[in-house]
Amino acid sequence: MAETKRPTSPAAEEILGGYFPVLDHGFVSLVDYMGTDEDIERAARVSYGYGTRKRSATRGLIRYLRRHAHTTPSEMVEFKFHVAMPIFVARQFVRHRTASINEYSGRYSLMPLVFYEPRHQEFALQSRSNNQGREDQPADASLYAAAIARWERVRAEASDAYGWLVQEDVARELARIDLPLSTYTQWYWKIDLHNLLHFLRLRVDAHAQWEIQEYGRVMAGMLARVAPLSYEAWIDYEVLGARMSGAELDVLRGLLAAEDDGITARPGRRNPDELAAAGLSGREVRELIGKLQSVKRPDFTLDPADMRTAEEMAARMAEAVPEPSG
Amino acid sequence: MAETKRPTSPAAEEILGGYFPVLDHGFVSLVDYMGTDEDIERAARVSYGYGTRKRSATRGLIRYLRRHAHTTPSEMVEFKFHVAMPIFVARQFVRHRTASINEYSGRYSLMPLVFYEPRHQEFALQSRSNNQGREDQPADASLYAAAIARWERVRAEASDAYGWLVQEDVARELARIDLPLSTYTQWYWKIDLHNLLHFLRLRVDAHAQWEIQEYGRVMAGMLARVAPLSYEAWIDYEVLGARMSGAELDVLRGLLAAEDDGITARPGRRNPDELAAAGLSGREVRELIGKLQSVKRPDFTLDPADMRTAEEMAARMAEAVPEPSG
Amino acid sequence: MAETKRPTSPAAEEILGGYFPVLDHGFVSLVDYMGTDEDIERAARVSYGYGTRKRSATRGLIRYLRRHAHTTPSEMVEFKFHVAMPIFVARQFVRHRTASINEYSGRYSLMPLVFYEPRHQEFALQSRSNNQGREDQPADASLYAAAIARWERVRAEASDAYGWLVQEDVARELARIDLPLSTYTQWYWKIDLHNLLHFLRLRVDAHAQWEIQEYGRVMAGMLARVAPLSYEAWIDYEVLGARMSGAELDVLRGLLAAEDDGITARPGRRNPDELAAAGLSGREVRELIGKLQSVKRPDFTLDPADMRTAEEMAARMAEAVPEPSG
Amino acid sequence: MAETKRPTSPAAEEILGGYFPVLDHGFVSLVDYMGTDEDIERAARVSYGYGTRKRSATRGLIRYLRRHAHTTPSEMVEFKFHVAMPIFVARQFVRHRTASINEYSGRYSLMPLVFYEPRHQEFALQSRSNNQGREDQPADASLYAAAIARWERVRAEASDAYGWLVQEDVARELARIDLPLSTYTQWYWKIDLHNLLHFLRLRVDAHAQWEIQEYGRVMAGMLARVAPLSYEAWIDYEVLGARMSGAELDVLRGLLAAEDDGITARPGRRNPDELAAAGLSGREVRELIGKLQSVKRPDFTLDPADMRTAEEMAARMAEAVPEPSG
Repeated sequence: MAETKRPTSPAAEEILGGYFPVLDHGFVSLVDYMGTDEDIERAARVSYGYGTRKRSATRGLIRYLRRHAHTTPSEMVEFKFHVAMPIFVARQFVRHRTASINEYSGRYSLMPLVFYEPRHQEFALQSRSNNQGREDQPADASLYAAAIARWERVRAEASDAYGWLVQEDVARELARIDLPLSTYTQWYWKIDLHNLLHFLRLRVDAHAQWEIQEYGRVMAGMLARVAPLSYEAWIDYEVLGARMSGAELDVLRGLLAAEDDGITARPGRRNPDELAAAGLSGREVRELIGKLQSVKRPDFTLDPADMRTAEEMAARMAEAVPEPSG
Repeated sequence: MAETKRPTSPAAEEILGGYFPVLDHGFVSLVDYMGTDEDIERAARVSYGYGTRKRSATRGLIRYLRRHAHTTPSEMVEFKFHVAMPIFVARQFVRHRTASINEYSGRYSLMPLVFYEPRHQEFALQSRSNNQGREDQPADASLYAAAIARWERVRAEASDAYGWLVQEDVARELARIDLPLSTYTQWYWKIDLHNLLHFLRLRVDAHAQWEIQEYGRVMAGMLARVAPLSYEAWIDYEVLGARMSGAELDVLRGLLAAEDDGITARPGRRNPDELAAAGLSGREVRELIGKLQSVKRPDFTLDPADMRTAEEMAARMAEAVPEPSG
Repeated sequence: MAETKRPTSPAAEEILGGYFPVLDHGFVSLVDYMGTDEDIERAARVSYGYGTRKRSATRGLIRYLRRHAHTTPSEMVEFKFHVAMPIFVARQFVRHRTASINEYSGRYSLMPLVFYEPRHQEFALQSRSNNQGREDQPADASLYAAAIARWERVRAEASDAYGWLVQEDVARELARIDLPLSTYTQWYWKIDLHNLLHFLRLRVDAHAQWEIQEYGRVMAGMLARVAPLSYEAWIDYEVLGARMSGAELDVLRGLLAAEDDGITARPGRRNPDELAAAGLSGREVRELIGKLQSVKRPDFTLDPADMRTAEEMAARMAEAVPEPSG
Repeated sequence: MAETKRPTSPAAEEILGGYFPVLDHGFVSLVDYMGTDEDIERAARVSYGYGTRKRSATRGLIRYLRRHAHTTPSEMVEFKFHVAMPIFVARQFVRHRTASINEYSGRYSLMPLVFYEPRHQEFALQSRSNNQGREDQPADASLYAAAIARWERVRAEASDAYGWLVQEDVARELARIDLPLSTYTQWYWKIDLHNLLHFLRLRVDAHAQWEIQEYGRVMAGMLARVAPLSYEAWIDYEVLGARMSGAELDVLRGLLAAEDDGITARPGRRNPDELAAAGLSGREVRELIGKLQSVKRPDFTLDPADMRTAEEMAARMAEAVPEPSG
């Protein structure tokens, strides 16, 4: 522990440097942060400085900023994570180009032979409704068992090949080319609050691949400890909110009269054909109905009891590294 | 005219290199573009390639991508503009850091002494409702006349000082430091479609300073000629659309029953107190009522008859450059 | 072919849309470009506008800009490529976050079962001198043959597993997780000239993995056709140039007297011990000696006879896609 | 003072939140930082993790990374500054688009009427040798006095106009448009170490406008307290280093024989004509000769005795804000 004049967040300090397991062999650790909710206000107040008379409380300001997409003040808070994840998940992370990344190098170092294996409950058929996702219900246990058996064979073969190539001192940059996408890699990943919220909104969404959602949920829990008001505003305005198109708003306007003194429902009803006639595609009709149905408030609270130490995590990975040559 | 295998848009070619006047002495010219709506589809189809069975039409795909914030394909279209604007407007442009800029250099070159002068119809008092804007109605004519007289004095003094310093061969980087923020500068400004839409959404919005809105409107008209389907989707989903928070959606859910077979208004009413009790701040109540009231579809169509030539614009600026020393 | 008022480069038009093979199954195609050397000058001249008296030729200006790292004008030229490469190469590309990418989706689409297999001449042991590379000379033929045999087994196993999972209609996002890193993927990749030069300098360098160098060389050849003066300046100032540290310059200053009327060698010699005493680490001594030895001018000229058609490339990939389920 | 598990730098803590004056009314304050030299090593070691045998010391690693332009680990350290500077300087800062900025808003708030006035020693004629700079020697005292007199008139006129417009409650976004570019603005400015070094290299360079150099020098002094090894490597490899083109290296190769056992001067001499014949332009000949002449090691050490408090700086600015209406 050191003394600092910098802003600190006790709830964040409590988990700083702890490792939260994700999936079967992965983890997320918050290794550093810069700033808290108060620093967002402080940055925004530069623009609100001399000659203005009143000061909202931090919470009101942060909610106002988020609601109106005034995002620059939230760039003033930074997060640094240490993350271990399967390569196919890492390939989804890197689409977010505003993060800084330092990844473990398979050219320089030996890869730990650690692979992600889906559990039965996540093993599902191609979704009928979402062309890039999976069904909500798991596939048959027998299909799962057969898949696991095949995956085990691929991994055994790939591990053998890698171990042998490394023993023969073949260049590591070549030895690794047949490792499967399920192999775990790791990196330092740094991002500001504004871009983290954008990442999380896309990645805790039900349309994201389930495996990356798992990482998003842990990071959201860390965010809640560094900047709780920003977290709350993000849940209220973005996670629980929805965008309405002009045509959707027109449907609402037909059913609701909005005046300065309130909003009144106009007796009426729109069936799917009428919604289509209002310019919504079939998919948009289903989307609008979905937005008007209740959703559950998500809870990304972390349990500090889940934390592991850096040493434990490092040891697990180190054990899985094959023997180098000579 | 040259022959090319690249995708072209005839409506864009019609205005390419023409100069559209903006404000009293500014302009926007589309000097180049890369790609059209079809190229967005082409880029998105990489992800939709082999093994998929059906192909939506370009329009449906572009609307789907915009609705779901799948923005990477729209990064594949680029725009390059030549823009002249007052320095205070230029300072608002540069907040959009995803554009590439080459600005006229006041260190190397002499500044044309051309200043922006607001018209009476845009000269207004500080807004009572929007803490950073102006009232909708112009201020008194006498106040306007007095302001213009003062501005003329500032500009005459600043022009004299600049002209004299330049005659004396004082370093240009120093001679220019007392030019007013209303002085026109110019630059090349290049941006991709995704980031242009983000810029335009913020800058044609009524909360933006009126002067930069004027630039946004002309650029939106140019966009409509390069990528008309993207333009249409942007109007429908973003300009005419609105974001609803979780609390706002809950209000709608209380007044509307949404089932698979349609949406039915439930008899009921929410007055401002009830809306506040539902968790909306006073400002949010007004915002929600505002979203449920009708808005007019904007029209950013350009009239090619407004175009001027590069030579005419260059000559006007050149005339306003003071005589250099020696 | 269409008519355009935009700047075109005949040498680029000649290869536009043609597919240049790279490695055993990959390719690079230049699918679009915006601007040429003249547009870099045009953008830079905004800053060099009124009140300046002379105009250098385009070549002199472009060389001056490159020498002095005035890079913003070269952001005004854009390239769009279609590239197919092994996933381990794609993972090196994405470190360059200034490019826009649309990648083929293994969640939505079926992956073609096409894998990169190194040739014997590129199959080498871990380098003794470069901790992340490979030796210059290939490894024994027998070792190569054994490695190929092992890789074939991994690929056969992984292909079988993927084909079977897809037949069973398992979610594609899961079916693909055991494909090896040698599997080919593809994407649209768009970047501006400034950032392309930065990418190429790192990726045609001998320290980059040989496989990505192959992509860099073809892209450099395409650059030479779009913006030949920028290409030439890049070769002269960056590829053939080198950075000297303060300590290295001090060594040179001890051996060379530089006056306004010329540079004269001072009789003298510095052996490695003396260089170390001057503050250079052992590795820096070797690097300095290396910089002072001759290098060959690289030649990235493309041969249009190597071009293939889009249809041929698409057909090859399509054949390698496994049969989807029923 | 709070306790933290985060890495801290005692030398940085000593000046944290202190205000260092720059120019006549400006300042730079380091308000927060994240990480130190050790964190650069920590990030880089992810890539150097398991299976590698030796560990260089932090200093050697940081020097190696900088020399070889392995810049991603240095993105892991962040700086947050509060800066007040004339608008013409602010316009040079924003060209560095990798920084996050929250600027004082002239639309929302009243501008303090504080202007930058060059001292005689910085008031110089247009440079004969550098087309965008000023001569090294100051201009005549009489010319300086005349310029100051003219500037005072411009500022008095502009201040009067602004004060009157604000009294009349004219919209602030309009009232400010005739303030001169010498008016001070302020902002929060956050950037990572990699991008800060790039900014500083360009902005402490003699070709940058002297006024922004002054800001660069103070920031460099702050950097030296947060990450002293990175600072030292930056001075050695970048500030004191130089880039040599292929043609320049060929000149050196003609005068120096470099073998594994050392570097030997070959008797010889190259006069400017011979250098031109080797492919160097006239300007390049002068540049090469310049690189081979001695330079002084810069010293950006800060004196904590120069620090002012936030309160003092805020009070000075607040005093200069005109009286608002009503």
